Amino acid sequence: MDSAQQTADFAANGHQFFLPHLSIDCVVFGYHDHQLKIFLVRYHGHEAWSLPGGFIKRDETLTDAANRILAEKTQITNVFLRQFHTFGDSPTRLNRIETQQIHNKIYAKVNVAIGEDHWLSERTLSIGYYALVDYHTLIITPEHLIEEYGWCDIDKILPLLFDHHEIIETALLTLRSQIYQLPIGYNLLPAKFTLPEIHALYEAVLGKTFDRRNFRKKLLTLGLVRQLDEQRKIGAHRSPFLYEFDLQNYHKALEQGAPLAY
Amino acid sequence: MDSAQQTADFAANGHQFFLPHLSIDCVVFGYHDHQLKIFLVRYHGHEAWSLPGGFIKRDETLTDAANRILAEKTQITNVFLRQFHTFGDSPTRLNRIETQQIHNKIYAKVNVAIGEDHWLSERTLSIGYYALVDYHTLIITPEHLIEEYGWCDIDKILPLLFDHHEIIETALLTLRSQIYQLPIGYNLLPAKFTLPEIHALYEAVLGKTFDRRNFRKKLLTLGLVRQLDEQRKIGAHRSPFLYEFDLQNYHKALEQGAPLAY
Repeated sequence: MDSAQQTADFAANGHQFFLPHLSIDCVVFGYHDHQLKIFLVRYHGHEAWSLPGGFIKRDETLTDAANRILAEKTQITNVFLRQFHTFGDSPTRLNRIETQQIHNKIYAKVNVAIGEDHWLSERTLSIGYYALVDYHTLIITPEHLIEEYGWCDIDKILPLLFDHHEIIETALLTLRSQIYQLPIGYNLLPAKFTLPEIHALYEAVLGKTFDRRNFRKKLLTLGLVRQLDEQRKIGAHRSPFLYEFDLQNYHKALEQGAPLAY
Repeated sequence: MDSAQQTADFAANGHQFFLPHLSIDCVVFGYHDHQLKIFLVRYHGHEAWSLPGGFIKRDETLTDAANRILAEKTQITNVFLRQFHTFGDSPTRLNRIETQQIHNKIYAKVNVAIGEDHWLSERTLSIGYYALVDYHTLIITPEHLIEEYGWCDIDKILPLLFDHHEIIETALLTLRSQIYQLPIGYNLLPAKFTLPEIHALYEAVLGKTFDRRNFRKKLLTLGLVRQLDEQRKIGAHRSPFLYEFDLQNYHKALEQGAPLAY
């Protein structure tokens, strides 16, 4: 929704084209400077932030909806995107007045009043998807109602609307349970990385510390990464070697699901 | 819905009390005679079978809805029940005419016609939950519209309505990815079991064969199970010892997520 007119049309007639009671919210993970980060947006009229999200078209598959919503809200396409949980337990999701007030403030920007009987005030369950993106190659042009956007460190998440804290927490627990089964490390790291970078990524996702030497030894013994003939200069006397994944060994390890470290 | 009247009332007025466009389907797993099984029901008017399922009340949390639906359809309560995926991609879920025809045949039993504009003909996404039950202690009294019900071996699933085959397949893949992280073995096995029983269960869930001696050795080395001073007589000269889980060691192993076998 690029223009004020499109946004106002959506509020007025969206229920004809979109399913009520169901939305999609996207937890977009990136990794930079040894920090796991999440992409957040701030809508007009609110100090609290939100996950990028939207509604499902009546004639569109759920997977198509998730990809379209992520692309519309963030211009992100062609990334690792996966459904992880549907949220319908939080009191905020059962409270129509709260839902109405939140939307009313957002749509004030395009002079649309969202009343108690408006379709956007209905109780809405949200289907959570997480996306893994390469922080370094991402260019984002967000849509009309978004006043501000940016990356937020996972351990310093700002105040959020609705139950978005719970959605992020569940997404993180999902990454944690899947990191030895799905190519999560591969999709969060740049193509070439240092050993301290991959070590810090696994620690950030798993929320614990691993002995540096044991972790590296296991990575190299299993042949998951290989050293490149290339170094990165990060200080006067510090130029660590760069590594890349050995995709054959990496996928074999994911299939077996064996932890790299405890 | 125990009576014909209650069932007819639900068809007529259900949209006032339940959310449209959203249902819950339950994949109930049991384990007996070295076979992983799923509980299926057959509704009036259909030769194809279904997963037990239902709709979410407008003022009820999603978790409460899942527990209530499982209890209403099967009398199963107090079991391991967990959401695993929401289904909205299958062409059958986008086809209103197919949805209408399926419901029309079911509700013919209570003389209710489901037309094209009936709320039960709407496109409906389904939230999948899986339940793990002790096959041996289960007593089931299913509700009014169900003509037949029973357990079906996982490798001999009967023809099913809607996308229920896909739901079962995804549930099984979920068990497979979670068996080393969640108490899946514990919830499927009886309190006392033989080593061949636990071995066959892990093979059935993971869909591969494990060397018998290595598997047992790992179980015992990790202290996951302990031998009881009790044997089961299964033949003239065969009385294998019974075992039980050592819950402390079992939960510690689940926390680490390490596979028992490859």
